[in-house]
Amino acid sequence: MASATEATVDATQPHEQDINPWKWNTQAIDQALLERFERVTGRKPHRWLRRGLFFSHRDFDKILDTYERGEPFFLYTGRGPSTGSLHLGHTIPMQFTQWLQECFDVPLVFMLTDDEKAIFNDSLTCEDTMRYALDNARDIIALGFDPKKTFIYSDLKYLGNHFLMNAWEFSKLVTFNQVRGAFGFNESTNIGRVFFPSVQCVAAFATSYPEIWTDEPFQDRLASIARIPCLIPMVRDNAHRMHNPSPKPALIHSKFLTALQGAGGKMSSSNPNSAIFMSDTPKQIKNKINRHAFSGGQVNLEEHRRLGGNPDVDVSYIYLTYFEDDDTKLAEAYKSYKQGTLLTGELKKMAIDLLQEYVQQFQARRETVTDQVLEEFMRPRKLEWRGNPQRPPPDVSGAKDKIKR
Amino acid sequence: MASATEATVDATQPHEQDINPWKWNTQAIDQALLERFERVTGRKPHRWLRRGLFFSHRDFDKILDTYERGEPFFLYTGRGPSTGSLHLGHTIPMQFTQWLQECFDVPLVFMLTDDEKAIFNDSLTCEDTMRYALDNARDIIALGFDPKKTFIYSDLKYLGNHFLMNAWEFSKLVTFNQVRGAFGFNESTNIGRVFFPSVQCVAAFATSYPEIWTDEPFQDRLASIARIPCLIPMVRDNAHRMHNPSPKPALIHSKFLTALQGAGGKMSSSNPNSAIFMSDTPKQIKNKINRHAFSGGQVNLEEHRRLGGNPDVDVSYIYLTYFEDDDTKLAEAYKSYKQGTLLTGELKKMAIDLLQEYVQQFQARRETVTDQVLEEFMRPRKLEWRGNPQRPPPDVSGAKDKIKR
Repeated sequence: MASATEATVDATQPHEQDINPWKWNTQAIDQALLERFERVTGRKPHRWLRRGLFFSHRDFDKILDTYERGEPFFLYTGRGPSTGSLHLGHTIPMQFTQWLQECFDVPLVFMLTDDEKAIFNDSLTCEDTMRYALDNARDIIALGFDPKKTFIYSDLKYLGNHFLMNAWEFSKLVTFNQVRGAFGFNESTNIGRVFFPSVQCVAAFATSYPEIWTDEPFQDRLASIARIPCLIPMVRDNAHRMHNPSPKPALIHSKFLTALQGAGGKMSSSNPNSAIFMSDTPKQIKNKINRHAFSGGQVNLEEHRRLGGNPDVDVSYIYLTYFEDDDTKLAEAYKSYKQGTLLTGELKKMAIDLLQEYVQQFQARRETVTDQVLEEFMRPRKLEWRGNPQRPPPDVSGAKDKIKR
Repeated sequence: MASATEATVDATQPHEQDINPWKWNTQAIDQALLERFERVTGRKPHRWLRRGLFFSHRDFDKILDTYERGEPFFLYTGRGPSTGSLHLGHTIPMQFTQWLQECFDVPLVFMLTDDEKAIFNDSLTCEDTMRYALDNARDIIALGFDPKKTFIYSDLKYLGNHFLMNAWEFSKLVTFNQVRGAFGFNESTNIGRVFFPSVQCVAAFATSYPEIWTDEPFQDRLASIARIPCLIPMVRDNAHRMHNPSPKPALIHSKFLTALQGAGGKMSSSNPNSAIFMSDTPKQIKNKINRHAFSGGQVNLEEHRRLGGNPDVDVSYIYLTYFEDDDTKLAEAYKSYKQGTLLTGELKKMAIDLLQEYVQQFQARRETVTDQVLEEFMRPRKLEWRGNPQRPPPDVSGAKDKIKR
């Protein structure tokens, strides 16, 4: 049974997650919104929505409007390839994005910020991070994204042309003073880091990816493409990266998945005992949960039966909220753990079974990601949306808005 | 006859040209160096070298060593496309570069910094500067560069891949503090400008242009390509742009061509009376020289005959030093003008004839620059050097230097 002491030696800097949506100029995802989502898409909201793990949004209601009108939008998410393999926490927003893609039937651009990782980490070269990016891309593909609707790109390979033009134009609107405040830079910060927010922000502009929208000469469709909105699923933690981009993308924020040590710490690749890796064997998963997952149970069996456990701080229970889709089963586990009828070992077993299954399914799909598959996902090309590959974005010429390329 | 008063209303901010080579950590181009150049290349030094118009260098002697060893190097120069057409002053370093290419038979990369012009000029968009870049490229081609050895690129179209990787890696070595000092930035400077020095500097790295060196997988030849040195002919005025790049390129510095108003002012596109444009008609050239070229002559004919003129401040004479190739003829003009036997009108006529010829030849070549020709110059492709297209850069594997991509 993991003790509270273990949590305090966790290298991952545990801290309270600030999930007050108002502070971030976002709104809580409430029951009314979820009901509307179900009405519009015909899909039951994902358990991560039902349980408030994805808890706040900005303009998600406008995305539903767009969807209802039959107009295109796109999903954008990313990953900073600082290491070659993913852990469970990395996959949560990705898996949620995959589910959104399935529900809405829309294009997704998946940014691998190998440039960022190289400029923010003095011990990594561009060659290192580019190699990690390709490894990560294979993992990402294994999460089940639709090859007809997904463009995965390495910044170091893809950036140029319209993307970079957007970044330069964006950079004209942002001063050193602004990024210093927003990102905690100072005068000794390297100039790559200072510029990088431009790159990050324009990744949410449809015009940064002309290839995915049209085969026609891009300039002819510039005005209509510039109006295609973007939805970004992200962990709250990364929200600061999106410093006031315009046009503002819609957002859905999640909490991050807690470390095995609990207490709001994040899984960290550099602390193997804090995380379940997507390359872990069933036995490793079992051992990690049994040895390291912080428990809300009592110090011994008798006490547990007498006082009951605390599921709210129990990491195994928290993982159940992520991976047990059956709401009734989850509610029962919560209740019986609290009453002391469900034991820590039994709760851990439930988490182990679910995680083993999730990771094993992932690993099986990972096996099928050949070089050819990887190449296809990373090829700049026209993507499909709403099951209609021939349907061009609607022409909205006459639009009076200032157009961002 | 242009009066001194006219010079003072010149919008081009006349000032003394600081041509002290020591201050810039460079060396004067002396007679011994010119003699060695002639011995090594078999070419008479260009009149602009003989007359000290290109007056200082860094490591030009090492470039001669490289040439003697039969090893490759390349020329790099650039142009900021802030307007669609060139004036005479713009063409001087370009024409000199063309001559160097002829002498050394080496590749040239010609950077059109349409990105820089857009981020440093709030009234220009990337679309504007990209259009100017293509217009400028046609002018540049008309200066006679060898299509087999010249790659002209628009930053906004070409930048990406290895070029951008070099820029990111370079940016890790440079802080905001450093560029603030070197470029006069402050905390309100936009972040595009802050980053741009990285782009500018790595343009002098051979590895930024893998296509021009090899058809083989680039990584295999990385070490040898990284050691190919670069020679940059530049006006002294732009020297500050090259902030300590490493590996350091070799440099040749020139004075800038004086404005019609003289007194060290620069020709400026925004002041039509300060400059001869490459699109000017013979009549326009004649009128500009006659009306606006600052004269070192006396106030009237009698005084001129009696006192003689001052060729050293006479703009027509200064233009002769650029365009009259015959040293004897130039010396005679100097002497007779000083003695008062050569009149201002006669001196102006000599300058007019030479400039009309230079501009007309340019315009005739400009006519031949078709879309196809433009496209070929701007296509990333393998370039020739030393008349040996098949000869790969020598393999210097085992080199222990830190390799810059």
